[in-house]
Amino acid sequence: MFKVTFKFESGEDVTTFAQENENLLEVARKVNVAIDAPCGGNASCGKCRVKILEGNIDSPKTRHISDEEYNNGWRLACVSKVTGDIAVQVPDIASAYRSRMKVADLSSKKEIAIFENAKNDIEEAGIALTNSMGILDIEMNVPTLDDTMPDNERFIRAIKKKTGAARVRLPFQVLNKIARIFRESAFQVRCVIRTSANKDDIFVYDVYPKDAEVVIGGLAVDIGTTTVSALLINMETGEIIGKASAGNGQIRYGADVINRIIESMKPGGSKKLQDAVIKETINPMIEQMCRASGFNPDHIYRMCVAGNTTMNHLLTGMEGDPIRMEPYIPTFYKTNSLFASDIGIRINRDAHIIIAPNIGSYVGGDITAGVLVSMLWNRPEFSLFIDLGTNGELVFGNSDFMMSCACSAGPAFEGGDISCGMRATDGAIEACTIDKETMEPSYRVIGEEGQKPIGLCGSGIIDVIAELFRTGIINPKGKFIREGKRIRHDRYGMGSYVLAFEEEAGSVKDVEINEVDIDNFIRAKGAIFSAIRTMLASLDFDVEMIDDVYVAGGIGSGINMRNAVRIGMFPDIPLEKFHYIGNSSLSGAYTMLLSREAERKCYDLASNMTYLELSAVPTYMDEFVACCFIPHTDTSLFPSCTQE
Amino acid sequence: MFKVTFKFESGEDVTTFAQENENLLEVARKVNVAIDAPCGGNASCGKCRVKILEGNIDSPKTRHISDEEYNNGWRLACVSKVTGDIAVQVPDIASAYRSRMKVADLSSKKEIAIFENAKNDIEEAGIALTNSMGILDIEMNVPTLDDTMPDNERFIRAIKKKTGAARVRLPFQVLNKIARIFRESAFQVRCVIRTSANKDDIFVYDVYPKDAEVVIGGLAVDIGTTTVSALLINMETGEIIGKASAGNGQIRYGADVINRIIESMKPGGSKKLQDAVIKETINPMIEQMCRASGFNPDHIYRMCVAGNTTMNHLLTGMEGDPIRMEPYIPTFYKTNSLFASDIGIRINRDAHIIIAPNIGSYVGGDITAGVLVSMLWNRPEFSLFIDLGTNGELVFGNSDFMMSCACSAGPAFEGGDISCGMRATDGAIEACTIDKETMEPSYRVIGEEGQKPIGLCGSGIIDVIAELFRTGIINPKGKFIREGKRIRHDRYGMGSYVLAFEEEAGSVKDVEINEVDIDNFIRAKGAIFSAIRTMLASLDFDVEMIDDVYVAGGIGSGINMRNAVRIGMFPDIPLEKFHYIGNSSLSGAYTMLLSREAERKCYDLASNMTYLELSAVPTYMDEFVACCFIPHTDTSLFPSCTQE
Repeated sequence: MFKVTFKFESGEDVTTFAQENENLLEVARKVNVAIDAPCGGNASCGKCRVKILEGNIDSPKTRHISDEEYNNGWRLACVSKVTGDIAVQVPDIASAYRSRMKVADLSSKKEIAIFENAKNDIEEAGIALTNSMGILDIEMNVPTLDDTMPDNERFIRAIKKKTGAARVRLPFQVLNKIARIFRESAFQVRCVIRTSANKDDIFVYDVYPKDAEVVIGGLAVDIGTTTVSALLINMETGEIIGKASAGNGQIRYGADVINRIIESMKPGGSKKLQDAVIKETINPMIEQMCRASGFNPDHIYRMCVAGNTTMNHLLTGMEGDPIRMEPYIPTFYKTNSLFASDIGIRINRDAHIIIAPNIGSYVGGDITAGVLVSMLWNRPEFSLFIDLGTNGELVFGNSDFMMSCACSAGPAFEGGDISCGMRATDGAIEACTIDKETMEPSYRVIGEEGQKPIGLCGSGIIDVIAELFRTGIINPKGKFIREGKRIRHDRYGMGSYVLAFEEEAGSVKDVEINEVDIDNFIRAKGAIFSAIRTMLASLDFDVEMIDDVYVAGGIGSGINMRNAVRIGMFPDIPLEKFHYIGNSSLSGAYTMLLSREAERKCYDLASNMTYLELSAVPTYMDEFVACCFIPHTDTSLFPSCTQE
Repeated sequence: MFKVTFKFESGEDVTTFAQENENLLEVARKVNVAIDAPCGGNASCGKCRVKILEGNIDSPKTRHISDEEYNNGWRLACVSKVTGDIAVQVPDIASAYRSRMKVADLSSKKEIAIFENAKNDIEEAGIALTNSMGILDIEMNVPTLDDTMPDNERFIRAIKKKTGAARVRLPFQVLNKIARIFRESAFQVRCVIRTSANKDDIFVYDVYPKDAEVVIGGLAVDIGTTTVSALLINMETGEIIGKASAGNGQIRYGADVINRIIESMKPGGSKKLQDAVIKETINPMIEQMCRASGFNPDHIYRMCVAGNTTMNHLLTGMEGDPIRMEPYIPTFYKTNSLFASDIGIRINRDAHIIIAPNIGSYVGGDITAGVLVSMLWNRPEFSLFIDLGTNGELVFGNSDFMMSCACSAGPAFEGGDISCGMRATDGAIEACTIDKETMEPSYRVIGEEGQKPIGLCGSGIIDVIAELFRTGIINPKGKFIREGKRIRHDRYGMGSYVLAFEEEAGSVKDVEINEVDIDNFIRAKGAIFSAIRTMLASLDFDVEMIDDVYVAGGIGSGINMRNAVRIGMFPDIPLEKFHYIGNSSLSGAYTMLLSREAERKCYDLASNMTYLELSAVPTYMDEFVACCFIPHTDTSLFPSCTQE
């Protein structure tokens, strides 16, 4: 057994022991050290870089490590075998998806404006912002020797009398505490209840002493393949109490849904994937939001999840295989069978978990929730909704019809599959320009004044590629065709552009973008654009007929639509038609918590949306291949770009 | 730290370590060695005897240990302090309540006849033997690319179509397995369902592949203060699959409900008492019954509990204090909020736990369930129902009215508070006669041919006391007044009668009965008889007006009614009026599982029964004191006895 130590840039470290020849990535996984390996550990993505600090390790050279880097101790964990005691540095970038949980500072109001907007839009569409949860004050007679009704009957009768409900249900957790609370508060109590739409049924979630300050907590969670975001809200007022985001802990089992499903079908796999998203991701986020705001997690009585179909199934531990195998039938699109205690979400154990409805195996609740807040369904104009997640999903339509489709974009928009890619969080370059003469970059970094760059988020990558192309540094195929101080080629001839040398960067590593990254991104944007073209063509529409484009996703609020058009990701239509609406999956889940009617509307949307299976359209593959250029093989599709 | 070893007659032993001066009873409790201490460990009951095998211990002499016994190494664990390494023998009798779980051999049919009778009686009263559980075969279309409804919707629609139900609920456990089962069985399945009375709602408990052999298991449990009994049944046919009984693991925290409530109110106490009855008693019984019959515990979909109000509350972990404090208000009389997973009963986690309704803090579901099967409510004749448990409860009435009352008899009827007392299980003397001349006993021992006596169960104690009195060995106060080989007096002058010397007995200890035992039993029988007198008097009834007496409880099927009258426990009325109906609490729970109508009938009985608080009747105490003789201070109440 050899001693293995992982050191983090934060100064923390984790030490464990490994067998001779044990794979370093496996060793890290066992002790829950998150080293990203979107490719699943087959040396193809180059993300799992670590740097040897002490000792040595058996690790071959690969195209992802330059000679100089190799000499400086850089290795890929996935191809390294332990041969002795060793200490390695884990760069922030290598664990960016997981370790960087961000609990938002709400004081600036910027973080919450987007949800205010969603709420207002919904209300303007005539949807009442009332939900099924409420607070009820109950006064009972204090029992005597002549009035010996047991506590539960006394309570249920008083609730029925006050509300007119026909049936009242006290769950075990409530039954278990009424004896104490009734006697502490002289049989005058305040309850958190849920009332059925017809007012006949009341479910009592909780009971407090009279006059207690009670806030009914609700939890909205967007479970993305790459990123998980959550809101803790006051369900009565809609106030946002906390906001957090973190990488989806499942990422170490593969970057896309197919790899995750395959992993989940191995023995114990389903539990492993479920733990990764619940125990390692969602529960810590709940804990941190609650700690930051002094909120008791047991007072979160309802949760709404928006995520794609696979994410929903892996969350609930359901079998994923039927989703990926023909005829692609999931266990559920929506369900009312799910409670927090069923899957170990650390909120009130009786909290109902509602799920934004999936409409197919590859168009999920993140999209229906997003469409809900895009208001596409409430306008006569033709709108295109685009969610730039690990899967790219599109919805086109108006108040009369809606069609959806999905394409596999990979994690590039959230910084995955890009050597210096990261989520749109502190340290991410979110915007960039490059001087045509000097080829020197100027960039904007997310975070406080003076924050140094660690990596690139989606919007930053778009800018960098657009600028590299505009300045003639790369050609339409994404290959480097100029030379300069910031342009390097490794021994395999692969070019890269350094945005920040190690000394300029906030990490132990240069921030750069290479040809493989550009290639990955071109394929991602190509998937989106070809999907747009194919879906519109199937409806006999043309891009000119689009009135509005709503862009959603974790790509970063700094997205430069002009650059997105320039690289051929979005159609070349007037820029004012583009609107970035942020994480619409999360704001959709938020409105579904706030409004019973919005929840129902979302179910309606799901059942009225048609689905186009792109792979069944014969022209789609050709269309995709044609899109894998900057901006496109057919430049006539991008007239404004060629005029520049 | 000293080494402490407990050796059992079975040959097993348990070794642990203790601090200097640690109390031996506490040491035993920590390692779950059950040494009975009904008095709670204050040296008053003398039950916690152990015999030193090696080493020594600091332990005073007490009146419960004779000089000879002391010299032979006998000590009371509750007053012993560890002062060095020690090994002690734990006699079977000292752990009789707990260790002796008995899984009944059902092949003789004797064990199940009583339940057959209860079932037949209920059916004859016009109560349908149908319940809400059933099996439903469902065939669905196999999904195709053109028929992509998700599994849960497909399933729910098929169930609605077949049954006409308006609402179908799939709990998480079922949702979680349908993907696999549907695909293994070509979308043809067999379900276990529960249908609401109005047929509108269906709850799906489980789903199996088509053609699976499905038995809907039900669990009836009688939770007595001293003894717990259970039946595993087939809910469709009523067939008894398994039967078990064991001492209630809570007994080490006190013999009666008041002591248990007090114990439960200490920090962590509620959990401790709950664990003692669930983890240590009920779950092992379920496991053994299932193992013996090859039944899967997950296939037990419903449970009915009959027990007194305190037992129900300690089972569910609810606060007991309000039960014992004026105005004596429990959390519930009945509840529909309880599921197996709420309290960790190891059956199907969604199994509903129904509770035979309590009618007051001191008349519980064991009585309502018992009255249900006594059929008292269905006859014009006046019947007296007596449940001889740790609490004695009485119900008097007919089809027009019913009155109940409760008295604290202590555990004597189940062998508690009696130095050689034990439950009516293998090794218990259940019947006895004594030769008037030689004073030699003849007895019948429960168990196989040749089973040696270990102790006395309730019916045996009645016989022994009646015979000691008839043969003039004891006087009406229960004091020894003859001398002989089997009669001993200790140094405090306390007399005892040896039924079996160590060499005749199946234990390491003589089987005997002493004046303290007799005194305890006289108080127990006095409590019963004075309760009968007081309740009848309050209704202006006299014992002659009783048409039938139904005796229930774990006293043993060998109860000799003549002897019970002779000692003044039951009124002196014609013997043919007495009927022993066994554990009517358990057979009541059994019928409640089998029949939805019987369950409802039991709720009706509970709400129609009046309750007499004996302690509020001024004459009760005098009546009780007058009863503490054999047979009574007023022998004119027992004319048939004085004529003998």
